[in-house]
Amino acid sequence: MHEIGFIRDLAVVMLVAGATTILFQRMRQPVLLGYILAGVLIGPHTPGVLVGDARTIDDISNLGVVLLMFTLGLEFSVRKLRDVGIGMLLVAVGEVGLMLWIGYGIGSLFGWKGMDALFLGAIISLSSTMVATRTLSELGQRRQPFAQLVVGLLVAEDMLAIVMLTLLTAVAIGGSVQAEAAFTLIGHLGLFVVVGMILGLLLLPRLVDYVAGFGRDETLLVSALGICFGASLVAVWMGFSVALGAFLAGAVVAESRSSGRVVHLVEPLRDMFAALFFVAIGLKIDPAMLWQYAVPALLIAGVVIIGKTLACSLGVLVVGHEPRTALRAGLGMAQIGEFSFVIATLGLSLGVISDFIYPVAVAVSVLCMALSPYLSRSGDRVASGLRRVTPRSVQLLATSYSGWLEHLKPVNENATLAAILRRLLWHIAVNILLVVTLFMVGAYVNAHGWTWFSTVGIGREMRHTMIWACALFLSLPMLIAVYRKAGALGMLLAEIGIRESFARSYTHAIRNILARVIPLATLLLLGILLSALGSAILPPRGIAIFLLVVGAVLSVVLWRGLVHMHARLQAALKETLDKPEPPVDGAG
Amino acid sequence: MHEIGFIRDLAVVMLVAGATTILFQRMRQPVLLGYILAGVLIGPHTPGVLVGDARTIDDISNLGVVLLMFTLGLEFSVRKLRDVGIGMLLVAVGEVGLMLWIGYGIGSLFGWKGMDALFLGAIISLSSTMVATRTLSELGQRRQPFAQLVVGLLVAEDMLAIVMLTLLTAVAIGGSVQAEAAFTLIGHLGLFVVVGMILGLLLLPRLVDYVAGFGRDETLLVSALGICFGASLVAVWMGFSVALGAFLAGAVVAESRSSGRVVHLVEPLRDMFAALFFVAIGLKIDPAMLWQYAVPALLIAGVVIIGKTLACSLGVLVVGHEPRTALRAGLGMAQIGEFSFVIATLGLSLGVISDFIYPVAVAVSVLCMALSPYLSRSGDRVASGLRRVTPRSVQLLATSYSGWLEHLKPVNENATLAAILRRLLWHIAVNILLVVTLFMVGAYVNAHGWTWFSTVGIGREMRHTMIWACALFLSLPMLIAVYRKAGALGMLLAEIGIRESFARSYTHAIRNILARVIPLATLLLLGILLSALGSAILPPRGIAIFLLVVGAVLSVVLWRGLVHMHARLQAALKETLDKPEPPVDGAG
Repeated sequence: MHEIGFIRDLAVVMLVAGATTILFQRMRQPVLLGYILAGVLIGPHTPGVLVGDARTIDDISNLGVVLLMFTLGLEFSVRKLRDVGIGMLLVAVGEVGLMLWIGYGIGSLFGWKGMDALFLGAIISLSSTMVATRTLSELGQRRQPFAQLVVGLLVAEDMLAIVMLTLLTAVAIGGSVQAEAAFTLIGHLGLFVVVGMILGLLLLPRLVDYVAGFGRDETLLVSALGICFGASLVAVWMGFSVALGAFLAGAVVAESRSSGRVVHLVEPLRDMFAALFFVAIGLKIDPAMLWQYAVPALLIAGVVIIGKTLACSLGVLVVGHEPRTALRAGLGMAQIGEFSFVIATLGLSLGVISDFIYPVAVAVSVLCMALSPYLSRSGDRVASGLRRVTPRSVQLLATSYSGWLEHLKPVNENATLAAILRRLLWHIAVNILLVVTLFMVGAYVNAHGWTWFSTVGIGREMRHTMIWACALFLSLPMLIAVYRKAGALGMLLAEIGIRESFARSYTHAIRNILARVIPLATLLLLGILLSALGSAILPPRGIAIFLLVVGAVLSVVLWRGLVHMHARLQAALKETLDKPEPPVDGAG
Repeated sequence: MHEIGFIRDLAVVMLVAGATTILFQRMRQPVLLGYILAGVLIGPHTPGVLVGDARTIDDISNLGVVLLMFTLGLEFSVRKLRDVGIGMLLVAVGEVGLMLWIGYGIGSLFGWKGMDALFLGAIISLSSTMVATRTLSELGQRRQPFAQLVVGLLVAEDMLAIVMLTLLTAVAIGGSVQAEAAFTLIGHLGLFVVVGMILGLLLLPRLVDYVAGFGRDETLLVSALGICFGASLVAVWMGFSVALGAFLAGAVVAESRSSGRVVHLVEPLRDMFAALFFVAIGLKIDPAMLWQYAVPALLIAGVVIIGKTLACSLGVLVVGHEPRTALRAGLGMAQIGEFSFVIATLGLSLGVISDFIYPVAVAVSVLCMALSPYLSRSGDRVASGLRRVTPRSVQLLATSYSGWLEHLKPVNENATLAAILRRLLWHIAVNILLVVTLFMVGAYVNAHGWTWFSTVGIGREMRHTMIWACALFLSLPMLIAVYRKAGALGMLLAEIGIRESFARSYTHAIRNILARVIPLATLLLLGILLSALGSAILPPRGIAIFLLVVGAVLSVVLWRGLVHMHARLQAALKETLDKPEPPVDGAG
């Protein structure tokens, strides 16, 4: 009987996972490591343990990826990313980029083919959120200052991981098909993430809070899972991985007031499927192959530990933290984990990497996981050791560097002006992004929905006119907002730039001109951008000009109404993002 | 790509389940009903929604059965069953038996074949714990007296369901193979349940509490799931359904001090997989077939509602509750649910029932579920209506009946003696059961492990001697306990039965003889029983007598040690069962 075969295999896996978790908890070793080793032990290379085909266990562990990414997204949240700060974001980008490059270099040195080397780089570039946060909890270091830095770096890396997953898909498909497809995919990605996040942030947190109001855990859980799988479905339909959709769904649901309850309900699911996921990783490993690639694996593990530690420590040092804190943060990041498996699986399922990459990735991450607690524990000792062997001059330099950084920060009036300037630029950027998105959605509908239009009996020109008009009129509130913010920007720049001592009696006139010219120039540039982007859906010139005139008239007539509508939209988004942090204890 | 097909289908199912749960919660209808209807809507008879084969969704929903049964077991617990009381247990047995018989009768009336009629009876005999407890919670009636009766009946029915599942398997296999196989299966069942429960109660609650001591939810959850799936594995290996193993595992884990935490962690898993399970039920339904069997379904639904209500109400009335309470309890039981699907699935997978039984079962349970909230809500109105139409004489009879029952209960000294008597008989029964179990395990090892013995070079006689000696010596503590308890029983009976007024000066002598005769007679009867049971493993007569003598000598020499050992075993079991009820709010 098929079903018994499946349940039997699942039962064996679950039983082994249960025994492993007790054993490794008892031995104070990372449990994830235990799961993988248990998987290797009961795998198909130990005959007789599993009866069914590995495909069903594979399906279940894919389900694990979706739930894993959803909970990672729930712990991510836009607010946390904003709190990480631009400095740590740059550290993460630099560090991940460096590791990607080193990995690619090592792969090339071994004489592997290009795609293998690229995937090796991606695999070793991302630290493991699960391993790092567990190690912090287990050593009781979660409240220490360096732990905040590690969590910040991990959040930033999560975001980079999503970008990387998609770019790798694009490059892999592009490599085997054509470059144009890759560019289209990247365009779609932008569209998907931006539209998804904005629509999601406007709708889903409200929906989740509404459902939470029923006061029934079951309803809340099943709806949250519905959102998670629904987003995965949309992601797959747009050509991305399920992981991306689940992660975005998590990040959006995290903004609801009830996110704490959702996390609480989803955690047992994640724990169960994470166990299955990691055992399934072990199942895929042939011990003989592991032996064959022992030397590269050891070498790469060494590179990961040393490279990650150095890159993160230096980065944290450069943005202005103490050397000891920087070193401990670096040691906390010195491992790879779940994303490495997700990326390796992606490469395998796209058929672009060689078979040995997967076991190598697993071996490297197992080595790193096993060493992770020791590395984190040795932080203080290593720091003291380093201080003893470092020349005094270098130490002085490091200390004076952070003092010098403090001086660089803008103060008083300048700081206030800089803050206002940053906010205006940020608002303008978001609104332009929204307008661009609207026109791109229009182009997308035009490209993919044209059969529907022709069945309804609408010709090409009429179709273009309709889509273009819709995009234009829907953009009006955003365009007016851009115009107003650009006006404010112009006035501010005029105030700062045109000193009265210099322009004398013309001061007022020059300032006035500047405040008018900047918004108009912005709109003009935007217009050019839009006609380039929307060239595929541009109606005949006469109609386009007519529509523009209608739009302008509507803008003037409805100015107050449109400003009001935009303010309400903005307030809704701001409210979702600015609510007080709920009392959630993030990672389990 | 296969995996995308699976995740896509699962995502569609989960998305639909999410939407359904919100909608039905909003409309204050049973959510389970919504899941099933949603399943019918997106099923294979609506083309284009699902792409993959239904097999994987089936696998997932089988996983749902395991988790469902595990949580039902967790809420069952030996202690609760003891609290239900013998009266309600008899009501449950009577009511389930009656419905089974009615169902069989209806099937025969329709001219269905015997196995179909039998399965129909089983399907309509068991009420739905999920629907009944949810209805109670949703109407805010959980604290009312009749709710306690409903929960008691449901617990008793859970136990009957397990018996029925196994007997149906036995009958189904027996029907198609031979009667002997069915008897063997029933013997195995007894062995499995008794050995499983005793070993389980001695080991698993301790293990769970030990793991809970680590203070990590993940470890506790994964170990609990390991136990659940491990027990299912053993059940399958012994030839039973996974449902049985999972239920027993739940009932055993429920006896640990940490069962509250385990329930809390497993609930989200159950909710997710219950949603999948009920949607998957809908997926299997062809609306056309439903239409074809509309008349039988409507008829059977009517029979279920009226039959269950009447049988339960009368039963509750007979064991001495108020008419109004009895009626409300009856209305609360008037539906069928998850066990019906489990039984129908069992019939399908064994290939003994016709294809139309499944949709009929689903239709009947959907109708009952839809009506369940209205029936429960109408309890008071129906009671008042009935009172108005009932002749005064009948009302008087009912009221005086419960008064009469009160008088029947033993009071004072007699009550104390009865309690002591009951306890002694209970202890003797458990110990005899243990001895019988040991010899049956011996016979089982003899029958199934003989190839192993011959490879080690042990002949038939030697094998019998070894197994029999092991069983005998392991039984010694239990045999001594039986002897001692039987002695106490004899003395008690002598005290009660031989009044001093009657036997005069011989009183003491007669009492003494009785107190000696009863234990010896018990041991003799036990010996005959054992030689019948253990006839397959009886060594040659000379050796058997020699072993018996050795056993007797050992008993005398080690009497104190063996008594002590038995007391410790008994204390361990008692401790597990008698610990104070943890603060758990059972069904979600």
